[in-house]
Amino acid sequence: MEVLFTFLPRDNQQERLRAEFPEVNFQFLYKDKTHLPKADIVVTYGEDLTAQDIESTNNLKWIMVASAGIEKMPHAAIAEKGIVVSNVRGIHKTPMAESALAHLLSLKRALPFIYDNQRKKEWNRKTKSSELSGSTAIIFGPGAIGSEIGRLLQAFGVHTIGCNRTGKESESMDEMVSFNNSLNVLPKADIIISVLPSTKETRHLLKAEHFQAMKETAIFMNLGRGDLVEDRIMLDAMQNNEIAYAVLDVFEQEPLPDNHPYWTMDNVIISPHVSSHSGKYVERALDVFIPNLHAWLSGAKTPTNPVDMERGY
Amino acid sequence: MEVLFTFLPRDNQQERLRAEFPEVNFQFLYKDKTHLPKADIVVTYGEDLTAQDIESTNNLKWIMVASAGIEKMPHAAIAEKGIVVSNVRGIHKTPMAESALAHLLSLKRALPFIYDNQRKKEWNRKTKSSELSGSTAIIFGPGAIGSEIGRLLQAFGVHTIGCNRTGKESESMDEMVSFNNSLNVLPKADIIISVLPSTKETRHLLKAEHFQAMKETAIFMNLGRGDLVEDRIMLDAMQNNEIAYAVLDVFEQEPLPDNHPYWTMDNVIISPHVSSHSGKYVERALDVFIPNLHAWLSGAKTPTNPVDMERGY
Repeated sequence: MEVLFTFLPRDNQQERLRAEFPEVNFQFLYKDKTHLPKADIVVTYGEDLTAQDIESTNNLKWIMVASAGIEKMPHAAIAEKGIVVSNVRGIHKTPMAESALAHLLSLKRALPFIYDNQRKKEWNRKTKSSELSGSTAIIFGPGAIGSEIGRLLQAFGVHTIGCNRTGKESESMDEMVSFNNSLNVLPKADIIISVLPSTKETRHLLKAEHFQAMKETAIFMNLGRGDLVEDRIMLDAMQNNEIAYAVLDVFEQEPLPDNHPYWTMDNVIISPHVSSHSGKYVERALDVFIPNLHAWLSGAKTPTNPVDMERGY
Repeated sequence: MEVLFTFLPRDNQQERLRAEFPEVNFQFLYKDKTHLPKADIVVTYGEDLTAQDIESTNNLKWIMVASAGIEKMPHAAIAEKGIVVSNVRGIHKTPMAESALAHLLSLKRALPFIYDNQRKKEWNRKTKSSELSGSTAIIFGPGAIGSEIGRLLQAFGVHTIGCNRTGKESESMDEMVSFNNSLNVLPKADIIISVLPSTKETRHLLKAEHFQAMKETAIFMNLGRGDLVEDRIMLDAMQNNEIAYAVLDVFEQEPLPDNHPYWTMDNVIISPHVSSHSGKYVERALDVFIPNLHAWLSGAKTPTNPVDMERGY
């Protein structure tokens, strides 16, 4: 049994795996695909496998994606070979929810203003601080991450409205609406957060009319995928001050081009696709992988968090 | 019955009072003490009354302080005249707890780094982000504000240790210690927050040894009063990197002098005594005052949140 990691866990994490599974041959090889033809299981961040790579495999039965996004995977090639794909749904939830709350609280409590005045050596108490408490938030994508954001927002006294394809009930959401009905609730939201994955349904889901429907004081935050909004629509909304702030962790083009107007706009916060960063990431991925590998070795063929390659999540 | 406000509520708030109490003569006079001798009740931020002012009063029975700090009040003169003092204990709790969480999450999720890179137009993903979740926090002063901070920290998965004079149980604290035993728990804290008032017991409570006992990675936050630590001790601790960050909302000398080293120190965040700021402040003070004034007019002589002038809180 050969398990190929296409990224490098820390030494102690590699040891943890070898100690736990003495019978397994682990390969930890970054940007080196020579072991793909022999691998039974591949553990990847999901951005490094091509259709050709999949064709080169002979024994591959399971791809564990140590990440949430699978849109860069060769879906058809994987489906054709009947390879099981699973991800680590939920392991981003703590850092991402903390990032969401960090950005919201920072803007509400005027931290950019406070930091600027320190740089200018100015004792300036004229902060325009406001409170998160009492706000209304819409969360596009109230899954594992979105519901964790919802849970924390509720602790701050925020009314949460989840928005997904079906409008079916979700955890930590006071209300739900479907994508089709989002225009009805946008006018009452102070905060709009998307953690949606990239799928056929979410691509360019938000249009100019959605931003026009939002309050002028609203904060929009995209921690999901950059293709949720066409960039020219997002830029227009901010240049026209349709809303107060956009916190963008993801962009149509990444890295964001050097000459993009966002860089110098006061109402746009550029977070360079880092909202899920955390020193605890690989450790948590292994916490998901290890019990699944034990089960796999005992004959189970359905790891937790299976991904439907057709649906896209 | 004459009620003197020594600050100016907004017009609609003044109207609210007049509509609610047509029989009361309200005076809203900023920096004008000519009405003090006639006033039955004074509503003040607590920083504008001298012993001489108190002596000049003839009818004054109740001072309502629309703030938490009463250390600038002429305690002896007030006690001598038997004037009842009450404050608005708790109305700072929402903005202050949000400020505390904003600063903590901002540092944990690397927002200063993210903001800096945007200013430099650099797409730099090498954030040293970490998580609030799983931390241990000590809260000096687990009263209304401290417990609200504790409640929110617990929602983020933080273990909370309250520290007060007696070590008696407090809300939203997983553990308690007394001031005398704080050195025993400081080495295990990732976060140390003080919201203590200025009293005989809290003045210079934290010494060099306390900062030396903290982790090098610890974040210290003072949202209470500037005399909790002598400034030269605080400065030493930060210049010697005894801890990772100090977030200071209060200082021995305010405004902080222009030439103070803090202004240019990367490990010190200067928040110019604004952590309690909120657009909702006066509104909430009136929400406390109005029912109390109704009760007072019906003969009650003990408003809610009475302050013990001897004890200092």
